[in-house]
Amino acid sequence: MNLISFLDYASVIVFAITGALVASRAQLDLVGFVFIACLTAVGGGTIRDLLLDRNPIFWIAEPTYLGTAATAAMITFFTAHLLESRMRALIWLDSFALAVAVAAGAGVAINLEQAPVIVVLMGIVTSCMGGLMRDVVVGDVPVVLKQGELYVTAAFAGATTTVMLNSYLPDVPYPLIIGAAV
Amino acid sequence: MNLISFLDYASVIVFAITGALVASRAQLDLVGFVFIACLTAVGGGTIRDLLLDRNPIFWIAEPTYLGTAATAAMITFFTAHLLESRMRALIWLDSFALAVAVAAGAGVAINLEQAPVIVVLMGIVTSCMGGLMRDVVVGDVPVVLKQGELYVTAAFAGATTTVMLNSYLPDVPYPLIIGAAV
Amino acid sequence: MNLISFLDYASVIVFAITGALVASRAQLDLVGFVFIACLTAVGGGTIRDLLLDRNPIFWIAEPTYLGTAATAAMITFFTAHLLESRMRALIWLDSFALAVAVAAGAGVAINLEQAPVIVVLMGIVTSCMGGLMRDVVVGDVPVVLKQGELYVTAAFAGATTTVMLNSYLPDVPYPLIIGAAV
Repeated sequence: MNLISFLDYASVIVFAITGALVASRAQLDLVGFVFIACLTAVGGGTIRDLLLDRNPIFWIAEPTYLGTAATAAMITFFTAHLLESRMRALIWLDSFALAVAVAAGAGVAINLEQAPVIVVLMGIVTSCMGGLMRDVVVGDVPVVLKQGELYVTAAFAGATTTVMLNSYLPDVPYPLIIGAAV
Repeated sequence: MNLISFLDYASVIVFAITGALVASRAQLDLVGFVFIACLTAVGGGTIRDLLLDRNPIFWIAEPTYLGTAATAAMITFFTAHLLESRMRALIWLDSFALAVAVAAGAGVAINLEQAPVIVVLMGIVTSCMGGLMRDVVVGDVPVVLKQGELYVTAAFAGATTTVMLNSYLPDVPYPLIIGAAV
Repeated sequence: MNLISFLDYASVIVFAITGALVASRAQLDLVGFVFIACLTAVGGGTIRDLLLDRNPIFWIAEPTYLGTAATAAMITFFTAHLLESRMRALIWLDSFALAVAVAAGAGVAINLEQAPVIVVLMGIVTSCMGGLMRDVVVGDVPVVLKQGELYVTAAFAGATTTVMLNSYLPDVPYPLIIGAAV
């Protein structure tokens, strides 16, 4: 398992949990939990892969991503009521997943030898689009737009850092730096 | 006209009618009816084709799908007020279209020799995404999420049945079995 | 810079302004302005490129489109409060952008030698989908559906005109005719 794969799994799990928390707030049933969790978890990466014409889509090549997301959703289904504040957990987890997803998205674009500006944009797309679709589907105004400055700035900073680091020191575990920025 | 083509047309017509009924509830005009009907009718299949990198998209290869959907929308436009309960008709038709679309979606994935889990997922995507986009665009919480257990379970059962039947008895008219499950 | 490129830039700028005006009505911050503006500006063209399997997507090939949209959004951010009626400006600009985007979208499909019906559809997709996604993301019922007759009729007329003109008189500046139709 290489670094990009590891980052992808980490962001899939955390995004799946945020999706499940949103499903919990919208009082959906178990199927709703799993659906929203999968949409949130692989949505951003799917749009990235479609835009870059990457074929096959990452979760078609490796369906364990969806299995992971579905498992995370089910665990959340049975434990969400234990959380004191689901909204606070949501924002905290979203920031974390975003930091990881930016790096994963940018890493894919770097591997495809895209221009730096596209690498930064793909980092943003991968990290923001899953959460955006999650919120639109359940009828909320997207958190990413309400707290835009925080989120997109973090994503932008993360992606730019990734690009710059990549030029000088490939294979450095950059998500830590990004996490700190968030 | 082969079996997949026939299933595709059947689900396009029924989904177009559900789209038109939703447009009717949202009090849209004729253009809105046709737009929502086409989105519902070909939306799921379009996402399936994009994800599987199937080219061209089925309705670009054969635009009569859209003509069929538009015609169904126009007929519904002039007859929707005759229905006593549009919501009940909607749920009933949705279940029927879903059963058919699952088989159509799974059939396409089988033809492309995808792994069984992807076949099942494509059945779900084809059948659920059109209705999901229909509801999101007019600002409703998706029916598929409100009645999730019914819908997705049916889709899952249908797709799994299709896969299993396909292994043993290709060319059996499986939608009947799926319809019964719904 | 050829005609299609010029039309693409013109529609990107005007759509970006409409996106920023919607962001202004939803009281988003600067990041929200830029995000919605970019989504509106390149959304329709992106869906067109995905559907036609055009690769790379136009704004990945030429990221200056996004830079243009972001700049237009920022200018709107600092000047939107000067407008007396943002809603009226929005509808007026939307019609203009739509007229231009129809021609741009149809032009791309013509270059790819698609059938006339697909050319017309791609004109409609390019022109309507950006605004549709803009409205769905901020939680409005899409303007294109509320004012459907006006919009889609204009788009349809524009695209059909473009196709017919193209058969007889390629390279005529057709957007003027379309603008008049709106």
